[in-house]
Amino acid sequence: MTVCRRARRREIVLFQRLASCFDNTGFCGIGVDAIAEAAETNKMTLYRHFGSKDDLICEALRFTSEKAAAFWDLLEASHPNDPMAQLQSWVKARAQCLADDKYGCDLANAAVELKEQGHPAHVVIENFKLAQRRRLEKLCRDAGVSEPELLSDTLSMLMEGAQVSKLATGSEGPSMRFMRACEAAIASFRQPARNTADTVGSEA
Amino acid sequence: MTVCRRARRREIVLFQRLASCFDNTGFCGIGVDAIAEAAETNKMTLYRHFGSKDDLICEALRFTSEKAAAFWDLLEASHPNDPMAQLQSWVKARAQCLADDKYGCDLANAAVELKEQGHPAHVVIENFKLAQRRRLEKLCRDAGVSEPELLSDTLSMLMEGAQVSKLATGSEGPSMRFMRACEAAIASFRQPARNTADTVGSEA
Repeated sequence: MTVCRRARRREIVLFQRLASCFDNTGFCGIGVDAIAEAAETNKMTLYRHFGSKDDLICEALRFTSEKAAAFWDLLEASHPNDPMAQLQSWVKARAQCLADDKYGCDLANAAVELKEQGHPAHVVIENFKLAQRRRLEKLCRDAGVSEPELLSDTLSMLMEGAQVSKLATGSEGPSMRFMRACEAAIASFRQPARNTADTVGSEA
Repeated sequence: MTVCRRARRREIVLFQRLASCFDNTGFCGIGVDAIAEAAETNKMTLYRHFGSKDDLICEALRFTSEKAAAFWDLLEASHPNDPMAQLQSWVKARAQCLADDKYGCDLANAAVELKEQGHPAHVVIENFKLAQRRRLEKLCRDAGVSEPELLSDTLSMLMEGAQVSKLATGSEGPSMRFMRACEAAIASFRQPARNTADTVGSEA
């Protein structure tokens, strides 16, 4: 293993430990000493890598967001030139994450926890979530559904909501129907566009 | 004003200040001294009312959940014997809360923030969210939609997801389509029940 690859490997291990540490304690209720202990390093080393605790949080979130971004390439490779199959795979993959991840999405959790106005992590979170939104919207458009922006935002909200809901009420709460809710939404947008105001707004 | 009513009024003011304090700082990153200062009282008084900080958090969440529970009575009174109109009002009211509340739902935020296994607030949060779920499911069933449990959980996830999404990406992110997403979901469940597996894929 080259020096460069060893350094990268050490960096990955450090970020994995940091992610696990924030999952367990949250971003606010922990000091740099405890972070260093959880990451099996020391405060000096952390400060050599990161200028401050805020900087450390931003880099840990960037690491998580890069991992998540790679998922889209895998999705495309799994069903080349079949965007509807990719969309169905997106649902399955999100359902699997929901089942596996005890603590939900690190970036969404950080958005809830970091209340401070102008905290630098907010830019990292927003950039990541908006990039995910653009990818999902493109996928919905490529899949030929009737209202791609609306379906994409519906699926995003279902995903974020399922994660929070699982934290609040466990896996037998509303999140137990995440996959069926996504499938029903996709099915309804595969039908010809209809004016929801006509159907919902007045009594049938 | 009687002594009893004055005491109740003081209690309401205290809980409103506590809610505002937790909105601004979160539940974890604040000590009892700072809570007392934000609530314009002192530590001694807080400890006379509440045995511990955990107890204080539970009572503050119970106060919020009682306010939210009262919403259902208003909803019923606004459209007596018209569950579909009540369901449409639920969507409008949730959209209004989404626009008004800068910090989202206190109870959902507490579910994200309080990581500690067995924290007594988890029971308060779960009881509240499950009670809301039962009310919404009953409303969907009374409104005669095709799959009341699925529509109810879909709407719950959209609501939780919209709140987190607004914190992550602001009001121009996916949450901007919360109302249309709910309306489209309701419209699709007003149509005769269909097998989503036939339309979407075979994994249902």
